[in-house]
Amino acid sequence: MKIAIIGMGSVGRGILEMIDGKDLGLSVTGLADSKSGLMDKDGIHIDEVLAAKRERGYCGDKSLSAIDIVEQADYDILVEVTPTDAKTGEPAMEFMKKAIGRGKNVVTSNKGPIALHYAKLQSLARKHQVGVRYEATVGGAIPVMHTLQHGLAGNRVLAVFGILNGTCNFILTRMAAEGLTYPQALLEAREMGYAEADPTYDVKGIDAAIKLVILSNTIWKRNVKLEDIEITGIDMLTTDALRLAEDQHCTIRLIAEAVPDRGILRVAPQILPKNHPLVVEGTLNALTIETDMAGEITLIGKGAGSKETASAVIGDILFIRDTHARGH
Amino acid sequence: MKIAIIGMGSVGRGILEMIDGKDLGLSVTGLADSKSGLMDKDGIHIDEVLAAKRERGYCGDKSLSAIDIVEQADYDILVEVTPTDAKTGEPAMEFMKKAIGRGKNVVTSNKGPIALHYAKLQSLARKHQVGVRYEATVGGAIPVMHTLQHGLAGNRVLAVFGILNGTCNFILTRMAAEGLTYPQALLEAREMGYAEADPTYDVKGIDAAIKLVILSNTIWKRNVKLEDIEITGIDMLTTDALRLAEDQHCTIRLIAEAVPDRGILRVAPQILPKNHPLVVEGTLNALTIETDMAGEITLIGKGAGSKETASAVIGDILFIRDTHARGH
Repeated sequence: MKIAIIGMGSVGRGILEMIDGKDLGLSVTGLADSKSGLMDKDGIHIDEVLAAKRERGYCGDKSLSAIDIVEQADYDILVEVTPTDAKTGEPAMEFMKKAIGRGKNVVTSNKGPIALHYAKLQSLARKHQVGVRYEATVGGAIPVMHTLQHGLAGNRVLAVFGILNGTCNFILTRMAAEGLTYPQALLEAREMGYAEADPTYDVKGIDAAIKLVILSNTIWKRNVKLEDIEITGIDMLTTDALRLAEDQHCTIRLIAEAVPDRGILRVAPQILPKNHPLVVEGTLNALTIETDMAGEITLIGKGAGSKETASAVIGDILFIRDTHARGH
Repeated sequence: MKIAIIGMGSVGRGILEMIDGKDLGLSVTGLADSKSGLMDKDGIHIDEVLAAKRERGYCGDKSLSAIDIVEQADYDILVEVTPTDAKTGEPAMEFMKKAIGRGKNVVTSNKGPIALHYAKLQSLARKHQVGVRYEATVGGAIPVMHTLQHGLAGNRVLAVFGILNGTCNFILTRMAAEGLTYPQALLEAREMGYAEADPTYDVKGIDAAIKLVILSNTIWKRNVKLEDIEITGIDMLTTDALRLAEDQHCTIRLIAEAVPDRGILRVAPQILPKNHPLVVEGTLNALTIETDMAGEITLIGKGAGSKETASAVIGDILFIRDTHARGH
């Protein structure tokens, strides 16, 4: 199976390393970063390209752009792993539309296009009879989408609630465990590489809300937008509030929650008993899915990381390969 | 999609009720219990059959047996949900072989044939190009097999450890919470319907070990047998042992564990910190899957029950339908 990868940040490099190190039967025939691109229908030499990227800062031919690769390379699946632009979804959306128009499957870790244009992407995919998969957009390494779309197929999902942002969870864990103030815990998260220089998206609850939009649209096909989510971040939480919760064998977590029958669509700090299954530590993510037949299913795992995101992307690639192959 | 269901115990009835109550596009064209069978290529009237079973104790025509339905009915998927015989796997194995020989897919909740004859069933399925799925055999409603086979595809699984028997977990939860002795907690489990009249398979760890065999063979294709598992049950555990664990903020759980690289294949009571993700309460099941890319993924949910098992079986049926349909 031939894949073209657009984006050579930590996710793109993670995928390349996994494909290079494992015998998965995948051949990379197109590759682009923000400065260059390359194509080889017989398969790119991954180790050479990774070395080139490390040494000179770009991967291929500067006269080729990402869109050239999308439009011209010979591939079965476009793997779109450029950074998320949550306001426009571009340029990822353009790459995906072009690939789908060529009859190619798409796998992405990019939250922007999925949160903004879910219905449009699905209808385009149906029209061109291709798959669009986005496991890596929610819950990192946890196969949330596989569970919702396949494992729990036939169930009516009544509600989802969970921890979808590892940065916030790390900060809250540290505030509770060490009595740190919010600024102290945020500083520690930055030093550990868990928070970006501008942590706004994470700590204000926007990243978790974007993931809740993706979950809601996947499950209930309701065309939910980010504006529909009631959002409260963790940046106003005091050490006192956490101490008060701890005194009652509870703690505080940033919970994303959707319960359509009760009109609930929100991201907010909530007090939970310490032995609640969702109370996970550090940068872990956790999601409880409430259904009519299976009852409550809870999934826990790493919500971010280069290898972990690569795991989700590769799971999607292999799913497209294995389910398509059956029919031939 | 046409299905034939063999077995009308609580699982079979649960599946029939779900198919009747939901618009899943499934038609039941064959059905058998231990005393009778019926066939209708245009689809059996489920409500009438469930009423007949309630009123007279059997579902169809007493001149038809289960094997007649397997051999003669017009169906795409055989749903084999007769009781488990862990020693022989019969008569389920015979039903499955016959169906596969007819080129039919098989979905089962029956641990016997999968634990005893996994390799044989897989090779038969390959030969006849059909699917054999058994999500319901391990972890009840938790989509363990979907997660291993699809969600985490591409990962190397390094280890699995978890709670695979809800009866034992209920007993241990009650012993710890209320200071009950083992016989008292077992009595309570029986009264609640969580333990059978003869609880040997559950409390001696055999049921959990059978599930560990199924997991190991699914993941590592090593042809593990029940005799290969080192098994210690919970029937010798004292209230004192639990109290000692509790004093150290720990508790005891019956853990099934497979770590091939360290030669570990065992079911045994283990002391775990109370905040460990695997320490679930009551009849819940929980499984942690340790992988090379995704890290540790933990799944928690209901391990038994009529609706819950139906959820797993229906997930398998829909997976076969949806992945086959793509190619046509």
